[in-house]
Amino acid sequence: MMKKELQPILWKEGKLVLLDQTRLPEEETYLTCTDCQQVAAAIRCLAVRGAPAIGVAAAFGAVLGAKEILANDGDLRLELPVVFDELRSTRPTAVNLFWALNRMERVFREKSPDAAGDLLLALETEALRLCEEDEACNRRIGEFGAELFTDGMRILTICNAGTLATVAHGTALSAIKMAVAQQKKISVVACETRPLLQGARLTTWELMRDGIPVTLITDGMAGYVMQRQMVDAVIVGADRVAVNGDVANKIGTYTLAVLAQKHGLPFYVAAPLSTVDFATPHGESIPIEERPADEVGVIQGVRIAPAGVKVFNPAFDLTPSELITAIVTEKGVVRPGEVKELRPGI
Amino acid sequence: MMKKELQPILWKEGKLVLLDQTRLPEEETYLTCTDCQQVAAAIRCLAVRGAPAIGVAAAFGAVLGAKEILANDGDLRLELPVVFDELRSTRPTAVNLFWALNRMERVFREKSPDAAGDLLLALETEALRLCEEDEACNRRIGEFGAELFTDGMRILTICNAGTLATVAHGTALSAIKMAVAQQKKISVVACETRPLLQGARLTTWELMRDGIPVTLITDGMAGYVMQRQMVDAVIVGADRVAVNGDVANKIGTYTLAVLAQKHGLPFYVAAPLSTVDFATPHGESIPIEERPADEVGVIQGVRIAPAGVKVFNPAFDLTPSELITAIVTEKGVVRPGEVKELRPGI
Repeated sequence: MMKKELQPILWKEGKLVLLDQTRLPEEETYLTCTDCQQVAAAIRCLAVRGAPAIGVAAAFGAVLGAKEILANDGDLRLELPVVFDELRSTRPTAVNLFWALNRMERVFREKSPDAAGDLLLALETEALRLCEEDEACNRRIGEFGAELFTDGMRILTICNAGTLATVAHGTALSAIKMAVAQQKKISVVACETRPLLQGARLTTWELMRDGIPVTLITDGMAGYVMQRQMVDAVIVGADRVAVNGDVANKIGTYTLAVLAQKHGLPFYVAAPLSTVDFATPHGESIPIEERPADEVGVIQGVRIAPAGVKVFNPAFDLTPSELITAIVTEKGVVRPGEVKELRPGI
Repeated sequence: MMKKELQPILWKEGKLVLLDQTRLPEEETYLTCTDCQQVAAAIRCLAVRGAPAIGVAAAFGAVLGAKEILANDGDLRLELPVVFDELRSTRPTAVNLFWALNRMERVFREKSPDAAGDLLLALETEALRLCEEDEACNRRIGEFGAELFTDGMRILTICNAGTLATVAHGTALSAIKMAVAQQKKISVVACETRPLLQGARLTTWELMRDGIPVTLITDGMAGYVMQRQMVDAVIVGADRVAVNGDVANKIGTYTLAVLAQKHGLPFYVAAPLSTVDFATPHGESIPIEERPADEVGVIQGVRIAPAGVKVFNPAFDLTPSELITAIVTEKGVVRPGEVKELRPGI
């Protein structure tokens, strides 16, 4: 059985406490954010990462921003939109960030800024609701996703779509953990996920903590382990799902999807509906973040490529819907072509 | 134009001087090997690497072994076979090692060990001949390979199949350098090649030294750059080519071949005939070296995965002949199915 769930994001005494994921697995240290700028910096530097997690963190960043404005006798009507803009500018690809901030902004618009105390409470309540919803969604994703896995399956994943990417449970890893909780013997092959090694640093750590067997490989080994029939399925998270079922996720995901197709393996994506961007018709419209060259040329402070080398460092890639077997959401397991039917209000 | 060629392997005053490739690109330092054990250690730790280079280094290792036996008044007939065995045991996949040592052993068998001075000279002559042949082969590989590349092409490669993997010129990179020497505008996308980062550390360094434009990516980005139509062809080296045209090469190569097929890109392998194992009918018979877990879990001394994590670390993978457009040898460019016709003596 699982240990006590990790708490990568915690709202405590009016402060946002974040597990600093840049320091894992060597150190389990926490950042305490008392203002909006600290939250924005934590999102930018990936101390908090994973689409659902950055949405929730940004929501609390907005609460901290509002508190600060009030503490300085500022004008919420003028200054809170600046806070939202700053938080929105932190990362471009994961749509949960914009989704969560839109939810917060709606609360702000619906309340009169003159009743400042009420507004602050309403913002805090909404952020806490986002937390609870994320946990509940991920539990349901786990329940639906676990049905895809049978006893003995060996499942390949990339990056970290676990508790560390969410408020609790995770998305792709929630399905794996739930299958294990159902007494299925499941083992995981974790791609290390260069450049920032979320697979090597975070997924292995999270699964080892839960006692789930995991084998670490480099990203380039994925083809070989499939060719050698060492895995039975692939499951990944998502940073943004388009209406047609195309998926933006961690760089390397598309390569895995092509390999899975070549080897006849099912390729699953696990994501809450907050990751579906109903305003984006297809993947090509999703902005792909490019990050600094030194993320590739320097690993944990050690330079591994010649100084001045030209680097291309997209943080995400696009997997077209035709390579995706199914998408696991809190509403059930759907084919990519059925994503459009999940639009809220339909 | 190219700078003066690098000399990663140099036989100088009866000693073998090796550019220590574990220290590149930060330091350009040389190891001077005065006995066979030092050469074996340099091959094992990848101070010298690349199929052609380890063949030549091992040949000089045998010369040093013979010198040592004579210096200690030993019996060449009894002791030199032990030297050959030790050198053969250093790495299992690249067939050039066995090919070069077989050539050396033939010289040993043909000469009477009673004329020790003659034998030593004959061994040294044979090792120097291997050097010259490698340089000449690689030049021809470059000439034939350059014909595959037209002006403006963007070429993706993995690992280092350059001068640093050979005595001179390289194999895959020889074709690129020759195309550049023919005034074609060629640029290279180098996959970093985890775990040991030969692409990031060596290929970028070698190409930057030659003034050839190179962009570094992580291995997981290869699919994305192909999807975005940022490359026009793939060329890689080889550690062993089977008679049916299957190729063992650096781990990650098979993934690139699957991606190239998916995107309709030509996938070329460049290798001298010394890399073709005419005793191996197909790739499945090629032994794939597995290397220590810490090569994946620790990068340049920095631990990046939890201590004790289970790791799978195959150093090579197998690319089936049907994914290979052509193989570039010193005898010309052939289809994988034509490799068998290149058998010496046919």
